[in-house]
Amino acid sequence: MIRYCLIFSYRGNEFYGYQIQKKERTVQEEMEKVLSKIFNEKMKISSSGRTDRGVHALGQVATFDASKEMDNEKLRFALNSLLPKDIHIESVRKCDATFHARFSAKAKTYVYIIKKGEENPFLTSYVFFLHKELNLDKIKEGSTLFLGEHDFRNFCTNKEEQSYMETLYEIRIHQKGDYYFFVLTGTGFKRYMVRMLIGTLLAYERDEISLDYIREKLKKKEKDPTCFKVPAEGLYLKEVYYEGEMEK
Amino acid sequence: MIRYCLIFSYRGNEFYGYQIQKKERTVQEEMEKVLSKIFNEKMKISSSGRTDRGVHALGQVATFDASKEMDNEKLRFALNSLLPKDIHIESVRKCDATFHARFSAKAKTYVYIIKKGEENPFLTSYVFFLHKELNLDKIKEGSTLFLGEHDFRNFCTNKEEQSYMETLYEIRIHQKGDYYFFVLTGTGFKRYMVRMLIGTLLAYERDEISLDYIREKLKKKEKDPTCFKVPAEGLYLKEVYYEGEMEK
Repeated sequence: MIRYCLIFSYRGNEFYGYQIQKKERTVQEEMEKVLSKIFNEKMKISSSGRTDRGVHALGQVATFDASKEMDNEKLRFALNSLLPKDIHIESVRKCDATFHARFSAKAKTYVYIIKKGEENPFLTSYVFFLHKELNLDKIKEGSTLFLGEHDFRNFCTNKEEQSYMETLYEIRIHQKGDYYFFVLTGTGFKRYMVRMLIGTLLAYERDEISLDYIREKLKKKEKDPTCFKVPAEGLYLKEVYYEGEMEK
Repeated sequence: MIRYCLIFSYRGNEFYGYQIQKKERTVQEEMEKVLSKIFNEKMKISSSGRTDRGVHALGQVATFDASKEMDNEKLRFALNSLLPKDIHIESVRKCDATFHARFSAKAKTYVYIIKKGEENPFLTSYVFFLHKELNLDKIKEGSTLFLGEHDFRNFCTNKEEQSYMETLYEIRIHQKGDYYFFVLTGTGFKRYMVRMLIGTLLAYERDEISLDYIREKLKKKEKDPTCFKVPAEGLYLKEVYYEGEMEK
């Protein structure tokens, strides 16, 4: 068997998330359908992790095993010809059979984009619109509390997890014209975690909560997740980092 | 009765065009539904012209008559709150009862956007992707043939029209990075006309036809429309020009 590794982007708004479901359109299903057609056998792919409904990806990573060897660039071309227009394969390579898109991942970067001003019908799936100026200094101040290793159980949904520990390496926040970019890099992000972290920072920015609210939520061992969450539209999985062969 | 005039934008890809239809989702239907709700009476709007399925608008113009007077900015806010996210009202004003969005229009500007390079899932509804560099000098040379007053029967679809005469004032073509912009201004554009003009220019650019092909199609009085047409995705109705009160 040959293990192939794909890096791909998708526009999330017409998918019910990445992971396959019985009835709804998903990224995984579209990809497995096309791979099965190309390789003429039933194919399964394994990604770095799911993304939720409406969330976009610029550099999602997934692997699959096939018995047939195909030229990387030819396979990429075939995939892009057959896939729907809201998925695009950026690169195809072969990788070691020990490489696992999810378990080998060392870190991930997500980007969240907020646009100041009125809604624009051409950007409505791509950014979160806010009608006011943001105090970035205040947001940056709040964001430092999240850096480092924490139990993020109160900044994700209720689903039972073995561990809620993650390390946030960096939260970079900057403005370009009317756009605010939040760039978060960490070992991993639980469900809704990026959206809840940013939602909490925005609540702090508008004085709805204090820094102590964040400190307590991070300390608390009982499940009591924050109610703040920004919408999915502005969220992009930007990059997944690996060591060794897949290192960038 | 008070005549209101709206300038609005919409993202065309989830509409079956502007004009109301029995079964499919259209811009006109969405707008009339919301206006009827706001004014609590059955409303009809009258636009500067229809746009086809997939075509976008940045500055479409429409009027409607209502018995109730409403503050312009309040009405704009109400409309934007109730309309779906792919329509956005840019401005509301009152106008003279003699003003007609279609018959008072003196000229229109359409923009067509081509992007060089691989497909990008985030731009797929917004631009037409071409995988090669365009020779803009050659396209500009061809475009001069269309300038001025012509019978455009062979650069539009077969529908019976009283007259196919239109005057093209300007075709501006420029490049910015990987993007090519075609900006066409004229008295009016028949169905598919912008897409057929640009399709023809691209066919000339790749040497599929000669300048004589264009000259003949413009001279010919029998209906024999060109087979060249670019897709709807890259097309935007940018502006409608009026004299007098609505002059910009």
